[in-house]
Amino acid sequence: MRDVVVIGVGLTKFGELWEQSIRQLTAEAGSKAILDSGIEGKDIDAMYVGSMSAGRFVGQEHVGALVADASGFSHLHIPSTRVEGACASGGLAFREGYLSIASGMNDVVVVGGVEKMMDVGGGAATETLATAADQEWEAFFGATFPGLYAMIAVKHMKEYGTTKEQLGQVAVKNHSNGAKNPYAQYRSTVTLDQVVNASPVAYPLGLLDCSPVTDGAAAVVLCAADKARQFTDKPLVKVIGSGQGSDTLALHARRDITTLDATVYAGRRAYRQANKNPADINLAEVHDCFTIAEVCAIEDLGFVEKGQGGKAVEDHVTTLGGRIPVNTSGGLKSKGHPVGATGVAQIVEVTQQLRGNAGERQVHDAHVGLTHNVGGSGATCVVHILEAM
Amino acid sequence: MRDVVVIGVGLTKFGELWEQSIRQLTAEAGSKAILDSGIEGKDIDAMYVGSMSAGRFVGQEHVGALVADASGFSHLHIPSTRVEGACASGGLAFREGYLSIASGMNDVVVVGGVEKMMDVGGGAATETLATAADQEWEAFFGATFPGLYAMIAVKHMKEYGTTKEQLGQVAVKNHSNGAKNPYAQYRSTVTLDQVVNASPVAYPLGLLDCSPVTDGAAAVVLCAADKARQFTDKPLVKVIGSGQGSDTLALHARRDITTLDATVYAGRRAYRQANKNPADINLAEVHDCFTIAEVCAIEDLGFVEKGQGGKAVEDHVTTLGGRIPVNTSGGLKSKGHPVGATGVAQIVEVTQQLRGNAGERQVHDAHVGLTHNVGGSGATCVVHILEAM
Repeated sequence: MRDVVVIGVGLTKFGELWEQSIRQLTAEAGSKAILDSGIEGKDIDAMYVGSMSAGRFVGQEHVGALVADASGFSHLHIPSTRVEGACASGGLAFREGYLSIASGMNDVVVVGGVEKMMDVGGGAATETLATAADQEWEAFFGATFPGLYAMIAVKHMKEYGTTKEQLGQVAVKNHSNGAKNPYAQYRSTVTLDQVVNASPVAYPLGLLDCSPVTDGAAAVVLCAADKARQFTDKPLVKVIGSGQGSDTLALHARRDITTLDATVYAGRRAYRQANKNPADINLAEVHDCFTIAEVCAIEDLGFVEKGQGGKAVEDHVTTLGGRIPVNTSGGLKSKGHPVGATGVAQIVEVTQQLRGNAGERQVHDAHVGLTHNVGGSGATCVVHILEAM
Repeated sequence: MRDVVVIGVGLTKFGELWEQSIRQLTAEAGSKAILDSGIEGKDIDAMYVGSMSAGRFVGQEHVGALVADASGFSHLHIPSTRVEGACASGGLAFREGYLSIASGMNDVVVVGGVEKMMDVGGGAATETLATAADQEWEAFFGATFPGLYAMIAVKHMKEYGTTKEQLGQVAVKNHSNGAKNPYAQYRSTVTLDQVVNASPVAYPLGLLDCSPVTDGAAAVVLCAADKARQFTDKPLVKVIGSGQGSDTLALHARRDITTLDATVYAGRRAYRQANKNPADINLAEVHDCFTIAEVCAIEDLGFVEKGQGGKAVEDHVTTLGGRIPVNTSGGLKSKGHPVGATGVAQIVEVTQQLRGNAGERQVHDAHVGLTHNVGGSGATCVVHILEAM
C-alpha cells in the first residue's frame, strides 16, 4: 500500500445556515480545501463524500454527483462517490478516499462530508436520525438516539459508578474548547451547574448532554505521499492507520452495551497498522454525540481503563493541557454535528493541530492524532491515526 | 495494484417480494454468494453494499451495518460500508470492494446490492427515484426520469432518425432474454406491437419502454487473485478494468443529451486499464432503465457508431447469437431494477456467462464481458470489464 498524506483542509461555519443550500456548503468546504492544498481541478482523480441522509433531509440522493457538479469541474467527469454509514459517513468516506490512493488507482482525491439538517421541521430531524438505528427493532417502536444512549449511560453509572456530574464535565470541557473555535456552532462556555440542571431529555441525559442538529460541510485533500511536494510546501500529515468495525445494528443485541466493540476493533486495527499504542497519541477527536459517548470512547480506545472514563474527564486528563486532550475542536457537542460532515471535520481539526495551526486550541508538541467516528449506537466505527511528517 | 477475481455470486428472485424484508434479501443473496465461493465468515475482511434510498423506501439508513448484522457475522465486527450513486450504487460498491483488495488492505470482500422498493405506496417510488435527479433544478419542478429519458429519446430520434420501433426492439430482445432467466421479474416475451402500442408514459416512451419497480438483492465475493485457490476450484473471473465518471446532475446542463459523457469517460478508463477495445468484448450488461438508455449505451461504449444504436438493435447485432449480445440477463427491463442491486446483478450475469454457467442464455466463447451501470440521467457512470482466467 502506498503512503497517503493530507495536503489541504476546509470547513464551513457549522450552525443554522438557513441561507446556504447543500450544494453551496459542499462547494464552499471543497473550494477551501482545494485552495489550501495547492492543487487544481485537473489534478483531482476522484472525489468521495460522506452524507447520512440527504435523501430525507433535502430530497437529494446521488450526493456524489451533486458534489462533482457543485465543484464546477463537471466537464472533467471526475469519479465521485457518496459513502454512508450514518453519523460515521464522513469517516468512511475518508477511508475510501485513502484506500483509493493506497491502491495506486488515484494520486489526488478530495474527500468531503456534508449534512443540511435544519430544513426539515419539528421532530423530522430526530426521526431521520433514527433511521441509523435498527428500523425494525428500535426506530419503529419509538427508540431514538437520546433514549438509546441514555440506556448506555444508566448501565455505565450502575457498573462503574459514573456520575451525572462526570458526564456533565464532558460538556463543560467541549464547550470550553468550542468557544475557541471560530467554526463552532456554539461558541459559548457552559458551567457544570447549567449542564446538570438543563432540561431533561432522557435520564440521565439533559439538553446539554446532547449534540445539536447542525448544517455544515468539511473537506480534505488527500495525495500520494511521493507526489505531495508537487503541490504544497505546507507541513504534511500522513495517514498511518485506518481501522473500521461493525456491530449489531440494535443496541439490545450487544455483548455489553457500555463497550462499543466496533470501536475496540477499529482502534486495534488502526493502532496495529500505525504501529502505535494509545499512549503514543497526543490528541484525539472522538464521537461525543452524547456526553456518555465520549466517556465510552476514551475507554474503548485505550486512553483510560474501562470504567474510568468519567473520573478521567473529572480529573482533566482529557482537557486542553491534560495528558491526552480530547475534542479540542469542541467536539460534536459544541462545534456541532452535521452528521455526514463530522468524520471529515475531525480530520480537519487533527490536521490543523499536527500542522501547528490550531491557534488558541493548539496542543503542545502534537505529533500524532487520532479520529474516532461512530454510526448509530455503535454499529459502525471508524478510527484513523495521523502523524506529522 | 493487486489482481482481483470474482469467486462467488448470489441473487434473490427479482420482483414484488411482499414477504421479504430488506434484511432478509441481503442475507439471502449474501449467503448464496458466500456458499458459491467456498469462503467462511472468518475469511471476510470487509463488506460493501450498494443501496440508493433505503432511507426513504424503508426508513433505514446505515445499510452497511444492517448487512453486517443480517449476515450473522456481527460478532466478527467486519467493516461494512454502504455506497450510493443512485441507480449506479451497486456498480460503485463493486468498485470500492475491488479497490480495497487492489490496495492490499483486504484479501476477501463481499459486495452486495439491495433495494426494497415495493413497500412505499402510489407514486412514492417515482418520487424517491427522482431524488437521483437534480432536486433544485429538476425534481422540484416535477421532472421525473421517464420525462428526462423521453427528452433524450426525442433528441436521438431527431438527430439520428431513430424510430419508436427501434426503441421497442430493445424491449422485445430483453424480454426474450429475461424469459430464459429464472431470477427475472418478468419471464414473459413481448411483441413489437405490444411495446409500440403500450400505454404512453412520456412520448416516445410507453409502459414497455420502462424498467419496473422491483425488490431484490445481489451479491458477489471478491478475492485477491493469489489467494483464490485457497477457497474454490471453480473457474475464476478476473476484474481487468474499472472506470467511473461523473457529469452534471441536471440533464439540461449537458454538452449533448444524446451522449452520456460519463459513460464515454468511464468506458475509456476501463478499456485502457484492461488493455481492450470495444471489439474485444464478447457480451455486455448495460443500463437499460429505459429502452433509449440501451441505445445510447451501446453507442457510448463504442460497440456501434454514434447514432447507429437503434439500427443495430433492429439488425440483431445485440441479440443473443449476434455480434455483441447485450443484456442476456433480461436487463433492467425484464429482469427488473431494484436500483441498488442492479450494478451487482450485472456482475453476477457476466460472471455466470464467463464461467459458462448461463444455461439457455449462454453466449458462445464468452471470454470477456463488460458491465455498465448508470446513476440518474447519466451524472454517474461506472464500467467494469471482466475476463475468464
